[in-house]
Amino acid sequence: MEKASEERRMPKRKYEARVPGLRAELVQMQVALQRATFPVILVIAGDEASGKGEVVNVLNGWLDPRGVETIAFHEPTDEERERPSMWRYWRSLPPRGRLAIYPGGWHADALGEEPRSPRELVEFEHTLESLTHFEGLLANDGALIVKIWLRLSETEQRTRLRELESHPDTAWRVSPDDWKRHRDYQRLTSLAERMRRLTSKPAAPWQVIEASDPRGRNLAVAETLLQRFHLHARAAARPKPFGRPTGTKPLRPSGVRRLHALPLDQRLSEADYEAKRDKWLGRLNRAVREASEQGRSIVWVFEGWDAAGKGGAIRRLSSAIDARDCRVIPIAKPTDEEKAHHYLWRFWRHVPRAGRVTIYDRSWYGRVLVERLEDFCRPEEWRRAYAEMSDFEEQLTEHGIIVLKFWLHLSKEEQLRRFRHREETAYKQHKINAEDWRNRRKWHAYEVAVGDMLALTSKPNAPWHLIAANNKRFARLEILKASCEQIDAALA
Amino acid sequence: MEKASEERRMPKRKYEARVPGLRAELVQMQVALQRATFPVILVIAGDEASGKGEVVNVLNGWLDPRGVETIAFHEPTDEERERPSMWRYWRSLPPRGRLAIYPGGWHADALGEEPRSPRELVEFEHTLESLTHFEGLLANDGALIVKIWLRLSETEQRTRLRELESHPDTAWRVSPDDWKRHRDYQRLTSLAERMRRLTSKPAAPWQVIEASDPRGRNLAVAETLLQRFHLHARAAARPKPFGRPTGTKPLRPSGVRRLHALPLDQRLSEADYEAKRDKWLGRLNRAVREASEQGRSIVWVFEGWDAAGKGGAIRRLSSAIDARDCRVIPIAKPTDEEKAHHYLWRFWRHVPRAGRVTIYDRSWYGRVLVERLEDFCRPEEWRRAYAEMSDFEEQLTEHGIIVLKFWLHLSKEEQLRRFRHREETAYKQHKINAEDWRNRRKWHAYEVAVGDMLALTSKPNAPWHLIAANNKRFARLEILKASCEQIDAALA
Repeated sequence: MEKASEERRMPKRKYEARVPGLRAELVQMQVALQRATFPVILVIAGDEASGKGEVVNVLNGWLDPRGVETIAFHEPTDEERERPSMWRYWRSLPPRGRLAIYPGGWHADALGEEPRSPRELVEFEHTLESLTHFEGLLANDGALIVKIWLRLSETEQRTRLRELESHPDTAWRVSPDDWKRHRDYQRLTSLAERMRRLTSKPAAPWQVIEASDPRGRNLAVAETLLQRFHLHARAAARPKPFGRPTGTKPLRPSGVRRLHALPLDQRLSEADYEAKRDKWLGRLNRAVREASEQGRSIVWVFEGWDAAGKGGAIRRLSSAIDARDCRVIPIAKPTDEEKAHHYLWRFWRHVPRAGRVTIYDRSWYGRVLVERLEDFCRPEEWRRAYAEMSDFEEQLTEHGIIVLKFWLHLSKEEQLRRFRHREETAYKQHKINAEDWRNRRKWHAYEVAVGDMLALTSKPNAPWHLIAANNKRFARLEILKASCEQIDAALA
Repeated sequence: MEKASEERRMPKRKYEARVPGLRAELVQMQVALQRATFPVILVIAGDEASGKGEVVNVLNGWLDPRGVETIAFHEPTDEERERPSMWRYWRSLPPRGRLAIYPGGWHADALGEEPRSPRELVEFEHTLESLTHFEGLLANDGALIVKIWLRLSETEQRTRLRELESHPDTAWRVSPDDWKRHRDYQRLTSLAERMRRLTSKPAAPWQVIEASDPRGRNLAVAETLLQRFHLHARAAARPKPFGRPTGTKPLRPSGVRRLHALPLDQRLSEADYEAKRDKWLGRLNRAVREASEQGRSIVWVFEGWDAAGKGGAIRRLSSAIDARDCRVIPIAKPTDEEKAHHYLWRFWRHVPRAGRVTIYDRSWYGRVLVERLEDFCRPEEWRRAYAEMSDFEEQLTEHGIIVLKFWLHLSKEEQLRRFRHREETAYKQHKINAEDWRNRRKWHAYEVAVGDMLALTSKPNAPWHLIAANNKRFARLEILKASCEQIDAALA
């Protein structure tokens, strides 16, 4: 799509002849999009004074406003600053079937930092890597990402700024900063080129459009969008072979070996438990308060077999935390708003503010457990998920959030005993249903999946704690201890 | 529920004997709640040092954490400050089938203002009225609202503060401010009493519980919640007679007369339109920018007959506004998260931040139009909605938001012409379906509903602009003019 700079401007008549047809095509695209299974993300970035705002406004005039949203990032709000930097991009994402236009995209934030020193440039590249990763996630999930860079030469930029200044209606749009940036044209242009080079990937390439002729520019942007949309829609409509289900074969046999090596017969007597419990609850209370005072948030992840005692463990744990700072997020069937987004979106939603706590009762790991084994997603999707989830957790921990992950392990016999007990106890019957029995019949397959999860996603920044849960008292105390130790270590 | 202060404390043995049964009852309540069609809002407020935090933590330990959330309001964030004061309460509300515990409730914010001067006290009472209205809305929608005030006498407060100070684990919870408030006990207590008196309504009464004995207090809170829940669930399960549908009879005949009096034959030639359009678009652009600079937001509401040209009018209008500051919210079928809340919740969601614009393409008025005529809600619900919606708009305008409401009016013949045109034009066919024809057959009934809406919800702060839309050019220019005039007047 790189176009050589043309000196000739498109005549107004030719432009006006083309616009009605283009508008009809855009609206037809929107009708098709409504039925599509993917969102469209359109980034309009570019050199100073290249007319990004104008293009966005023109597109908004051409499109049916009902299916499109323009999302601009201003100064981060305090709710945004208290979360990892990608949080505000995640929460802005359009659902499937909708189009969002991002003037400047997420790239404007990165360029706005104006990195100069070598250290700043290293940070800049690190940020660009996160952005590339983010776009890769979305593209893998089916999103169409169209990124347009409007290019303006130094001479044209000067002409354009002068033009804007000379009209009373547009003079307000030129600030002293714009002229400052104009004088810095060479450096800023090469920084932007570096940005484009590092964030251009096959799934989300930058397309450079010559912006010296506003009419030609507007048409080129709309035509690029249409072209990319139709290519993408055709590709999305092609039936994808599901691939051979490989859910029951281990990717990393070491994981399931770790699981089998766990001694499950560890017990704790009632008396022992009561003697130690309050000490550890008190210690946990102090650790969480200390984290909160430092503005550090905590995320707990609880996974485990059905009836392994996740609920009870969470209850015990949260009793030591001020309920005002703590949210328990039970992960069950996603809502339709959640289903219309990337699978990680619903977890990003609940990332805690500075100094608060979120406890996930089941989590993103459902992707590589139930979704893997029940074929709710494609083999390439759950295989990819291990790295995606580790990256998500890395973003949390890099922001200073402490991530604690627990797998509550149970023997098959102990689960059976608990299922029977639930069925026989009036007020526990709601906790057992046909699905639990169905999952139980897949015990072996689940063990393989759990093993892979442990082997592939236990990282120094977010390790898995494997808890022997045949004895509830023992398990609860182990969780308290491991939590205290990890929090204390993180604060040290 | 007011209990006389008892000097005797509950023995530990008696307490411990009661707790297991109570916990089972609470969890059973939660199981019943999952299937219920209402949310539960539990406010735990009270005098200083009465143990609000403790009660909240104890309840969280007794309840299954999966169905309960604790919501505490800290200092408003900037995202909250930029919206009307009730916005942060609206966004916190639990969906149907869930329980939220509010330590301090919304009342703590009001009491925290510590009103002293007569003027501050008038403002205080005004705030309390808003809170009462808010709770009334939720209760009318079926919510169970349990508000508990933990009472502590002056002597007991002193004892309690000293107790807390004497333990290293709890000393941090007593601040110099707490002692200051203790010395001000009389005034604060009578302020709280005044608050309770003014916000106690049959649907959301305050229930005062003696807090001097922590064990007795914990049990009383849990028992109050259980009792209120069962009463409420029984009442909610009783079949409600739907009442006689009265949707087609006018409540205020003056409204439909106003509609009929509108001359629909007003036209504007192409040449006239083009001569004037740009002038008004420019003026609108300046007005919106001026509003934005003053931090004033703008909300546009577009309602009108099918095919009256809402989409085109919005497109024209938004072309004059910087797309980065403007969101168009099309109102169609609610998502399941929206359905699980009060009908106004989905509109509160999109209230713009300071200086931004939201355009609602259809709006909350669906309640008194389609929902009234299709029996999607009960007659008492849509009848109540007029006042509810006016109140919502009053909250917006009191916060400084400019609210512009347009009804695009059409003759029945012109609608028929446009329907036929849509059916005959390939790229417009998606805009017409069987439902449009069905609505058209109810033209007369809709006229009555529109008339009532105009008569009952046109207020000086948020007037309805009635637009003759048989001629699209005329309509668009009228909308531009009326918008400019209302914005300019609001900024003057």
